[in-house]
Amino acid sequence: MAIDRNSLRGKLFIIIFGAHTKHGRQFDVFLLWFIVTSVLVVCLESVPSIRNQYHGLLHSLEVFFTIVFTIEYLLRLYSHPKPLTYFLSFFGIIDLLSIIPFYLTVILPAGHFLVTIRIIRLLRVFRILKLTSFVHHAHVLKTAIIASLQKITVFMLTIISLVLIIGTVMYVVEGEENGFTSIPQSIYWAIVTITTVGYGDLTPQTPLGQVISSVVMIMGYAIIAVPTGIVTVEMSRSMPVSRKAEQVECLSCGKSMPLNSNFCSNCGHQLNE
Amino acid sequence: MAIDRNSLRGKLFIIIFGAHTKHGRQFDVFLLWFIVTSVLVVCLESVPSIRNQYHGLLHSLEVFFTIVFTIEYLLRLYSHPKPLTYFLSFFGIIDLLSIIPFYLTVILPAGHFLVTIRIIRLLRVFRILKLTSFVHHAHVLKTAIIASLQKITVFMLTIISLVLIIGTVMYVVEGEENGFTSIPQSIYWAIVTITTVGYGDLTPQTPLGQVISSVVMIMGYAIIAVPTGIVTVEMSRSMPVSRKAEQVECLSCGKSMPLNSNFCSNCGHQLNE
Amino acid sequence: MAIDRNSLRGKLFIIIFGAHTKHGRQFDVFLLWFIVTSVLVVCLESVPSIRNQYHGLLHSLEVFFTIVFTIEYLLRLYSHPKPLTYFLSFFGIIDLLSIIPFYLTVILPAGHFLVTIRIIRLLRVFRILKLTSFVHHAHVLKTAIIASLQKITVFMLTIISLVLIIGTVMYVVEGEENGFTSIPQSIYWAIVTITTVGYGDLTPQTPLGQVISSVVMIMGYAIIAVPTGIVTVEMSRSMPVSRKAEQVECLSCGKSMPLNSNFCSNCGHQLNE
Amino acid sequence: MAIDRNSLRGKLFIIIFGAHTKHGRQFDVFLLWFIVTSVLVVCLESVPSIRNQYHGLLHSLEVFFTIVFTIEYLLRLYSHPKPLTYFLSFFGIIDLLSIIPFYLTVILPAGHFLVTIRIIRLLRVFRILKLTSFVHHAHVLKTAIIASLQKITVFMLTIISLVLIIGTVMYVVEGEENGFTSIPQSIYWAIVTITTVGYGDLTPQTPLGQVISSVVMIMGYAIIAVPTGIVTVEMSRSMPVSRKAEQVECLSCGKSMPLNSNFCSNCGHQLNE
Repeated sequence: MAIDRNSLRGKLFIIIFGAHTKHGRQFDVFLLWFIVTSVLVVCLESVPSIRNQYHGLLHSLEVFFTIVFTIEYLLRLYSHPKPLTYFLSFFGIIDLLSIIPFYLTVILPAGHFLVTIRIIRLLRVFRILKLTSFVHHAHVLKTAIIASLQKITVFMLTIISLVLIIGTVMYVVEGEENGFTSIPQSIYWAIVTITTVGYGDLTPQTPLGQVISSVVMIMGYAIIAVPTGIVTVEMSRSMPVSRKAEQVECLSCGKSMPLNSNFCSNCGHQLNE
Repeated sequence: MAIDRNSLRGKLFIIIFGAHTKHGRQFDVFLLWFIVTSVLVVCLESVPSIRNQYHGLLHSLEVFFTIVFTIEYLLRLYSHPKPLTYFLSFFGIIDLLSIIPFYLTVILPAGHFLVTIRIIRLLRVFRILKLTSFVHHAHVLKTAIIASLQKITVFMLTIISLVLIIGTVMYVVEGEENGFTSIPQSIYWAIVTITTVGYGDLTPQTPLGQVISSVVMIMGYAIIAVPTGIVTVEMSRSMPVSRKAEQVECLSCGKSMPLNSNFCSNCGHQLNE
Repeated sequence: MAIDRNSLRGKLFIIIFGAHTKHGRQFDVFLLWFIVTSVLVVCLESVPSIRNQYHGLLHSLEVFFTIVFTIEYLLRLYSHPKPLTYFLSFFGIIDLLSIIPFYLTVILPAGHFLVTIRIIRLLRVFRILKLTSFVHHAHVLKTAIIASLQKITVFMLTIISLVLIIGTVMYVVEGEENGFTSIPQSIYWAIVTITTVGYGDLTPQTPLGQVISSVVMIMGYAIIAVPTGIVTVEMSRSMPVSRKAEQVECLSCGKSMPLNSNFCSNCGHQLNE
Repeated sequence: MAIDRNSLRGKLFIIIFGAHTKHGRQFDVFLLWFIVTSVLVVCLESVPSIRNQYHGLLHSLEVFFTIVFTIEYLLRLYSHPKPLTYFLSFFGIIDLLSIIPFYLTVILPAGHFLVTIRIIRLLRVFRILKLTSFVHHAHVLKTAIIASLQKITVFMLTIISLVLIIGTVMYVVEGEENGFTSIPQSIYWAIVTITTVGYGDLTPQTPLGQVISSVVMIMGYAIIAVPTGIVTVEMSRSMPVSRKAEQVECLSCGKSMPLNSNFCSNCGHQLNE
């Protein structure tokens, strides 16, 4: 379906979904600030001292932002040429998830559950990414990460197996009296250690446990090299080898050739007479 | 010895060891779920609260899984054209190790020892790797890691020497009153620090100790670059430089051109008639 | 405006701003030692035990260094051909900021505020970088980092979004009774975890919290690969591929040969007669 | 001075310093085990429980090893064609340092000082590196690390400046009541944080301190990419780009050429008729 640029729906679509008109850009900038501010309000509301003092103001702001985002969501649904496509798209779902929790709070006034649902609100932050001007760079990163995914998965399966075995060994070696109360708990420790996070809430107490930990740590030190290697290689394959890999354009067919070509490899046109 | 595809042994071999027939794939999927579930059962059994409540169920499941894996192991031995080769292969040993500890538990009903042996059971998890479809990617990773091994070994020997000396210096500087009760304990601290794990169970208390720690940490920060560099370079050597690197050779001058070229960029010869 | 090399201003300019004359180098070396010593004095003054014992000496030294740096600053302003350009330049501002806090201390003798301002003094340390002879290497690093900045920014925005969502999830899962007292506090925990710092002042206590933490840690482990990949690729693009990459061109067929070749490997033409 | 292979000195030189004869290799293997065992003895002696029980045995072993190493050191001095060159060489100094502390212990029987000196003994471990067969790989690593040193130095100076400023800011923000008792202490914290070690002995308590820490951590996360990038690029420049960069040898002059060369670039001999 073509967009009628003169109808209200067409104009709204260009403003809300596009960023190439003045009004479209203004809308996006407004939206960015609204999202950032609303996230800030939710964060501040969670701080006990601030909540106690400014509860009324923060709650009003939250109601205001939710209404604004709801209107925006309805306008998006209305103005999109294919509302269902939008509704089922990634950002359509995110847009919906960023307003739903508030209304659930109204329906279910139970304190504790409310808090659990509140978290999904935060997902609206992802919408900020839509506004980034670094689309090209994001694309290079995305390509490299997707190309790495299969290798990263193999690597992750190896890590998970490793962590399972290390966790069990430590559970047996250290035992419940040193805080390794179960295999899952020991696996948690193994992950904390192999990723070099090292909280220190669980630490090996026995000499044998410390020896095993040392091996695990040095192993983790070497293992961290693997995902880095994968991503680096994939990234270098997504980009030209050298910033100096300058190109010459064929005057006949317009295709780019390496600078030192004699003939266009596309149409056979002679490049440097 | 050739496999007789019509005999029972031949059919079993194709189902159990192969993954290219429908039944073979079904068998592998079943096995995957059995392994994951049995590992989960062992993990859950180690959690005190769950063990107390569901001890009977978990124990029955463990008996069931062990019987299944034992039958599977015997069938593998029976169906393999060269049973001894399988028995001595890596996965043959892993398969055996994943059932033996249970039977040892039956023979030796002593509580504490039992727990120590239980850990080997977990090794059966490695069998999951057999089922991965990412064989190619695993191979690239494996090649790169093997090619890195010698350099990583040189690096590791340097780290071990370094950690020994740092550990001794800290033992002398901090002393037993600050928790550095022996050289091995100080080496453990040095490894925790240089790998950037940093539990915090042992920390330098004296100003000199903190200065030395700072140097060790910054050193560790720079040193972490070395294994990463090794693996990255080896990995980039295992893969074609560019995803676009497939080449076609010019029949006229012999120069390599990108696969999608129509003409040789060197002599102008038409490539794909 | 040209510099009159015989006037006092011209001579001062060459000594103070230049490093290619004997006096200019001597001035820079003096300045380096003065800066390092004055920073050391400020650091020592902050240590309670040293401050109590040597307060008079340290304070006198600080007065002395500040006077020296003030005279130096005035001489720079006087001798520079375009004082305003210097005044507004990066190092002009740093030079000013490295003397101002002391005078503010004199005007405002209030204890606590004084301490707050003192910190800016430390910025004078940056001037040391002026004296480094590793300008070329600093330039290569700078080029690579600037070229990486846009990609790093995209990456950082993703991390910030991720950390916000993880922080909220953990606030909901762990709750105030386990130390996750607010969303900002939980975000702080998420950053501590995903960067693999892992202080251990906040750690997950509930099983679900530990599972989520484990996922976050493994994610952080894989994510750390991304900035490394970005910087490595940009750095490799800033440098020639091989230390042996210097080439000589064959005068007969035009192909590039390694510098030490005697004959062209393509057409057999003798290269260095 | 040429070595007389038939004199005692010449024979000793070949055995002690060389590794290409049967006796030379045997000597090196013996030495390796002696060094490893003696280091182990020193480590075990530092463990209080072991020292109390086996003090006599461990002390005797230490005396024995020191005598052996002293005789070895004297034989090295005697057999080397240029004793002074050996005495002043890196390994000459290490060899001496690995026996001196024991004799100092005999002269100065004071308990505490003795411990301080004991540490230098550990340096003998470095001699193990002499025995490694991975000389080539060590050389590649060494070349890459040396080539990286200047860039790493620029990087390290930047880090030190950064850590100084961050340390001062945190000293002002957190203050003595939160454990940041002095600027050096705060710098120690900044290094612990930026290197992602994160002991947790000092942690920010104020909201502003936690915000600054978060920025420092994310910065450290990005900064860790820089040394890795430097080393990776230098390492990739020390090694051939591809394992497939196979070579063809010129039948006329013996020099290796890239596989696709038509003529030897050294002597002009035609390679592939």
